Amino acid sequence: MPVLTIAEAEAEIAAALVRANTSPENAAHVARALVAAEADGLKGHGLSRVATYAAQAKAGKVDGHATPTAARPKPGVLAVDAAHGFAYPALALVADELPEIAQAQGVAAAAIRRSHHCGAAGHPVEALAEKGLVALLFANTPAAIAPWGGKLPVFGTNPIAFACPMPGRAPVVVDLSLSKVARGNILAAKQKGEPIPEGWALDVDGNPTTDAEAALEGTMLPLGDAKGTALALMVELLAAGITGANYAAEASSFLDAEGPPPGTGQLILALDPQALGGEGALARVSALAAMIEGQDGARLPGMRRLALREKARAEGLQVADAALAAIHAI
Amino acid sequence: MPVLTIAEAEAEIAAALVRANTSPENAAHVARALVAAEADGLKGHGLSRVATYAAQAKAGKVDGHATPTAARPKPGVLAVDAAHGFAYPALALVADELPEIAQAQGVAAAAIRRSHHCGAAGHPVEALAEKGLVALLFANTPAAIAPWGGKLPVFGTNPIAFACPMPGRAPVVVDLSLSKVARGNILAAKQKGEPIPEGWALDVDGNPTTDAEAALEGTMLPLGDAKGTALALMVELLAAGITGANYAAEASSFLDAEGPPPGTGQLILALDPQALGGEGALARVSALAAMIEGQDGARLPGMRRLALREKARAEGLQVADAALAAIHAI
Repeated sequence: MPVLTIAEAEAEIAAALVRANTSPENAAHVARALVAAEADGLKGHGLSRVATYAAQAKAGKVDGHATPTAARPKPGVLAVDAAHGFAYPALALVADELPEIAQAQGVAAAAIRRSHHCGAAGHPVEALAEKGLVALLFANTPAAIAPWGGKLPVFGTNPIAFACPMPGRAPVVVDLSLSKVARGNILAAKQKGEPIPEGWALDVDGNPTTDAEAALEGTMLPLGDAKGTALALMVELLAAGITGANYAAEASSFLDAEGPPPGTGQLILALDPQALGGEGALARVSALAAMIEGQDGARLPGMRRLALREKARAEGLQVADAALAAIHAI
Repeated sequence: MPVLTIAEAEAEIAAALVRANTSPENAAHVARALVAAEADGLKGHGLSRVATYAAQAKAGKVDGHATPTAARPKPGVLAVDAAHGFAYPALALVADELPEIAQAQGVAAAAIRRSHHCGAAGHPVEALAEKGLVALLFANTPAAIAPWGGKLPVFGTNPIAFACPMPGRAPVVVDLSLSKVARGNILAAKQKGEPIPEGWALDVDGNPTTDAEAALEGTMLPLGDAKGTALALMVELLAAGITGANYAAEASSFLDAEGPPPGTGQLILALDPQALGGEGALARVSALAAMIEGQDGARLPGMRRLALREKARAEGLQVADAALAAIHAI
């Protein structure tokens, strides 16, 4: 299997996106984000996205030449219009501008509308934590989860991400979607002709199903049953309702070139821990980490991703021949 | 069963707390909060708490005469010291001061340290939503949940609450704790001598158990397995790590008069929806509600609580003889 350095992988992807009607600057943002996800082992947000992103840019479903713009309607708020481009240039704008606002105000919010797939949701918050901020991200995605008791999908799998600086080591990062399992697990079962466990999905009539095909036509179940749909509602309102973005049920797919732009949204909050908890705030974060890591078998979330990232930086990324050929064919 | 009006119930509880070494002003805050929870059908945060609160005030574990104080270390931040008093006076201070800050800044954060049981977590965010703000609350509670793979409890059941205004009707409110079920369910099974379902709790060795007694000595399982413990970690860091409050594992019980004050924390975020999403932001909230309520069998969270509240306002609260006698006996 070919092995590419991080820089080589980024260059290959950026060049492919430029061939697919994307500006070099935007292509570089997208390439960095996809390679970072791939390096962390988050393959669903990694190189597997290049072909569908390129098709969307070629079709104009995503505007590869869009330039995100930001307004400051109030001192603590950055209102970002991603202009139906990729999410990553808008997220980069937030990474550039939000830290200064959060440091000055103590707390800051960035609302991104007319956006697209935000990829590995942990990365934007991790970037803010590396600048000393505690950060939260809420994003909505195309419809997948029904309200509790209903059968039509109204909520996306709606990731929540969180990061907090830790003195002397990498930030702690939480990154989870609100579906019980990723849709890819159901796709994999369908391809193998295998049933899925009960509790993953409902059929189109809102009944539990173990049939992968029926599940793909129906809706995904959330983690934690009714509590999970309540969290999905919360994220839908935070990421789309109050940012002016499209709701899950209004958004076109992130995975094909059909229809109008998805127009989904992201809300990012950044907090200055010293303003909230005084000078000792971050030392307290280390104290909690010690309570967890002192237990046999317990660890902080995100440790596997960091280990994979180190390995990818040192040894490069293994990219299947077919995946590389698909990128070259763009 | 005796029936008390809301005002009568508040007066009975406030008088009992004053007899238990609490200032009239603080007693009034506590009484209002407990009666509001009881009226919403949230009995675990309602009148059942009066006796243990009173015992804690008498013992000095909670300072019934504490006056919360607030600092403004940065323009968007209210840093509140609950001074080891009840949480409700501190929450009332936040309800008074945070809206103006959030309206001016677009986003505001209140960090409460040296606090106590915050009761029905939906109420403080609902109060902010009634003033036109979108609000989030994160609170930690005494240790109940182990890190994934571990066996010692490090996280509380750590509620997350969220509220969003809806034009022309009551705010939508999400209020959930991160344990799969409330501890009261396990206590009830123990009292009946019944087993509990697998998936509710682990024994002291970190193994799944269906024995209620073993579960009470062990740890609670979170909703959503490993994702739930990641959320519990997030809340622990937001509510206690960066506010300067005690962690779950450092906090004494909310339910007895033993030991030092719990000293837990709450973080409340308030957002101005118009600043984030423009003038149409709240109309968009109604649009999502319509997508949910248009489905047979689906409803917004919190509807049952509102119905019970209306009933209690109209017909009063039924209070068991023994419960009323216990309040009189304080």
